[in-house]
Amino acid sequence: MAAYCKIRQWVFLLLIFNLLTNPCFAESPNFIIMLMDDMGWGDLGVFGEPNKETPNLDKMAAEGMLFPDFYSANPLCSPSRAALLSGRLPIRNGFYTTNAHARNSYTPQIIVGGIPDEEILLPELLQKVGYRSKIIGKWHLGHRPQFHPLKHGFDEWFGSPNCHFGPYDDKTTPNIPVYRDTEMIGRYYEEFPINKNGESNLTQIFIQEAVSFIQNQSSKGQPFFLYWAVDATHEPLYASGPFLGTSRRGLYGDAVRELDYGVGVILQKLKSLNIDKNTFAFFSSDNGAATYAKTDGGSNGPFLCGKQTTFEGGVREPSIAWWTGKIQPGQVSHQVGSLMDLYTTLVNLAGADVPKDRVIDGIDLSDVLFSNQTFDRPLFYYRGNELMAVRLGIYKAHLWTWTNSIQEYNQGIDFCPGEEIENVTTHEQVNQSSLPLLFHIGRDFGEKYIIKPNSVEYKMVMPKIIAAVENHKANLVPGIPQLNLCDDAVMNWSPPGCEKLNKCLKAPPSKPYKCPWPH
Amino acid sequence: MAAYCKIRQWVFLLLIFNLLTNPCFAESPNFIIMLMDDMGWGDLGVFGEPNKETPNLDKMAAEGMLFPDFYSANPLCSPSRAALLSGRLPIRNGFYTTNAHARNSYTPQIIVGGIPDEEILLPELLQKVGYRSKIIGKWHLGHRPQFHPLKHGFDEWFGSPNCHFGPYDDKTTPNIPVYRDTEMIGRYYEEFPINKNGESNLTQIFIQEAVSFIQNQSSKGQPFFLYWAVDATHEPLYASGPFLGTSRRGLYGDAVRELDYGVGVILQKLKSLNIDKNTFAFFSSDNGAATYAKTDGGSNGPFLCGKQTTFEGGVREPSIAWWTGKIQPGQVSHQVGSLMDLYTTLVNLAGADVPKDRVIDGIDLSDVLFSNQTFDRPLFYYRGNELMAVRLGIYKAHLWTWTNSIQEYNQGIDFCPGEEIENVTTHEQVNQSSLPLLFHIGRDFGEKYIIKPNSVEYKMVMPKIIAAVENHKANLVPGIPQLNLCDDAVMNWSPPGCEKLNKCLKAPPSKPYKCPWPH
Repeated sequence: MAAYCKIRQWVFLLLIFNLLTNPCFAESPNFIIMLMDDMGWGDLGVFGEPNKETPNLDKMAAEGMLFPDFYSANPLCSPSRAALLSGRLPIRNGFYTTNAHARNSYTPQIIVGGIPDEEILLPELLQKVGYRSKIIGKWHLGHRPQFHPLKHGFDEWFGSPNCHFGPYDDKTTPNIPVYRDTEMIGRYYEEFPINKNGESNLTQIFIQEAVSFIQNQSSKGQPFFLYWAVDATHEPLYASGPFLGTSRRGLYGDAVRELDYGVGVILQKLKSLNIDKNTFAFFSSDNGAATYAKTDGGSNGPFLCGKQTTFEGGVREPSIAWWTGKIQPGQVSHQVGSLMDLYTTLVNLAGADVPKDRVIDGIDLSDVLFSNQTFDRPLFYYRGNELMAVRLGIYKAHLWTWTNSIQEYNQGIDFCPGEEIENVTTHEQVNQSSLPLLFHIGRDFGEKYIIKPNSVEYKMVMPKIIAAVENHKANLVPGIPQLNLCDDAVMNWSPPGCEKLNKCLKAPPSKPYKCPWPH
Repeated sequence: MAAYCKIRQWVFLLLIFNLLTNPCFAESPNFIIMLMDDMGWGDLGVFGEPNKETPNLDKMAAEGMLFPDFYSANPLCSPSRAALLSGRLPIRNGFYTTNAHARNSYTPQIIVGGIPDEEILLPELLQKVGYRSKIIGKWHLGHRPQFHPLKHGFDEWFGSPNCHFGPYDDKTTPNIPVYRDTEMIGRYYEEFPINKNGESNLTQIFIQEAVSFIQNQSSKGQPFFLYWAVDATHEPLYASGPFLGTSRRGLYGDAVRELDYGVGVILQKLKSLNIDKNTFAFFSSDNGAATYAKTDGGSNGPFLCGKQTTFEGGVREPSIAWWTGKIQPGQVSHQVGSLMDLYTTLVNLAGADVPKDRVIDGIDLSDVLFSNQTFDRPLFYYRGNELMAVRLGIYKAHLWTWTNSIQEYNQGIDFCPGEEIENVTTHEQVNQSSLPLLFHIGRDFGEKYIIKPNSVEYKMVMPKIIAAVENHKANLVPGIPQLNLCDDAVMNWSPPGCEKLNKCLKAPPSKPYKCPWPH
């Protein structure tokens, strides 16, 4: 009996030791958001890309929960990302323009604005409850120092504030800087080359940065939030040597294959560190595939049009949730989800408090993720300052229709190549709100067949949608638009740290002007 | 040592016993072809259908080999099915019309013709090496008695000779008969009801017929070929009570869900009988989804147009090969395959002889299935008597373009709803063969971006395609067209067995005429 008691004591002590040393599962799971750039819904094998180039993502879906009905908050990069990190629609957080009606806008390096200090970003909340957060890749919430990630809750940053457009001449336009934390460490096309043939090892660097951060945090036992905002599928496309030319569909596919490889490396790292049971990973994209890039862009599968539009191809995202032991494998959820929901969900999972002094558009998806429940919620599709469409249940109503101007279209810029739905893919901004165009996007996910306004179905559904719109508008206080003003003087001439590298450039005199947003 | 020797002797005896009692794997595997009707490439979850309604097919793909680049021989039902069973293009086996140029034709009940006796069908060859074959469902190779399945190698039949169109009045038009073997046992909408709301237990009957046949053959130990040619996804759509209203996309989705359930039942039956290791199952569809059926049809995913056309949406089929232990799980093959390949592959696997006195278009896919090899082969897309397009490698060239006539289109019949590619989805028959339209269907699977004829790529690729076309045409001896003649007198007025049921109807006098094939 004495021996038995001793064993019991030892087991008890071991349990205590275990509790003290192991990461505290219920209170502080790790978070990884893997956000692709311009990748389309149809680019994953599991979503029907015919070349089937994403074995790791398909595996992630098989091990987790697939979301065919998941959306970005906006069909363009900066507003989509600002919404993800603030949990709020761009119309609230200021990531829109009033320079013209219903125009997409973003943060090129001529933009003066950025994320307002008043917005409380996800990493700020996580920081308060002991998390360490890192962004790897593209920030896109303002490139001027006051807007930088480390001013808004992130603890680490490796990447760039803007898109990797270029190369520039560093005279009329500076090349985009690459930062480590608060200081630049080089520029794209200079220290961080992207060759003319699309060769670049940037994705490999981004993968290595992720692996190191995960490793560090794991060894410290501190919960982390990793925001892996890679951009190889955004023009100019790039891939590293071993991936170049490996896809049946060109450089875009090469980039997809390398990113898929990266997802595999990251998830495998979690498993090998034995922290996969304590890490919630979510994969998605910032907006639909850039159909205007023709064969250099991705696929939106069976959905209408692409990036820049509020048709399904512009905002429906390839989305997968993954958490060993917590999310049952092999599930499909038809929950209408939004990237903004990650804000609320992660804040709650971390045991932090969702701000109560403002409207948060994201909802908590815990019951979806862990119990496969679904619930109704309206989804609002904005383009700039206009509410273009609403999804409620399986229906979608267009209050406004527009692709782009006929002038732009005639110049060859086409957001809906090969697709033309009469009265829907219009080249004028058409106010449809007196009799919204209604679609059943379960049986008509291509938004091809307008439900007749005199039908029973229309009369049954539309009042509910109108009520949702009215409720939304009644409670809407638009934020101050941040994307109205441009100025060549604010470009990345002399980013912090440039002097150490002897890479400061001379800025022209300040001449602010209203940014022209063509579509 | 003596004990060791004794064990060795026993092991040897057990091996012998095992060899004598187990089904003879290498010589006589069972075959199941599950052929859907008008189901599109995009209708499977694994091919990106957003409602994700096919868990059993997705599992079949995970356990087997998925073929994203698999084709029917024709964009219409009868020619596609005749090609599958004869291993030969419709232009050779006679399943086409010369009443007009490049017209689709099939076997409605006014058709005089059917499969010629000269064609050696797959079950005829299998019969010679000891197989028992059963067709369940739609035959579609001629409804007059001389064309029936049991005259062409099948041993059993449960199903109908034509589409389940109706209900008819049995005066101007008889309802379609349902056969058991050589005699009718009732008619659709009479003994085999399909209600106005789409309720019918036909798929359940077809599942039960399959299970019983498999069970019987398994207990007899005789190798079998089951041709499961179900048709719930062909208009008029139907599903049984438990499946009605279960899909997010209406009756079409209900039918898909029930067929998917049936696939699950059949594969599970093979497993429970422990003959899955000795059974090769292949899932596919006869042509692309009927996009002209609007929201009552299926999805061709990201592919252009649908049934009736030689664009990818008309002929690319959702295809899965499955054979426990022989086909490694989780594979994807980009082999350009054809339903006609099943003919050659199955004949070879059965140890029978492929006819040597004629051109067989199907190739043996064994090395693809069992070693995941791929090899180049040209694929010819016919519409009636015209070679419309050719695929070679990752390229596709259109020699002719046509959707349907502008008159038909103006009446609302649209094979490419919402899609319009200039100079491609033409409403005139355009002879492009002097400068064929070239597409790279790896990076442009929607056939949207014509490769410029003055490009290096075009000049490199086109000569190879032209050579393949010339070689094909040089060796082509068109069969006698079987689908030219129609006659109301040949309809299913008095099918064999009608007298026993007192269901014989009076035929009108014979007045043969050239069938009008509008598209």
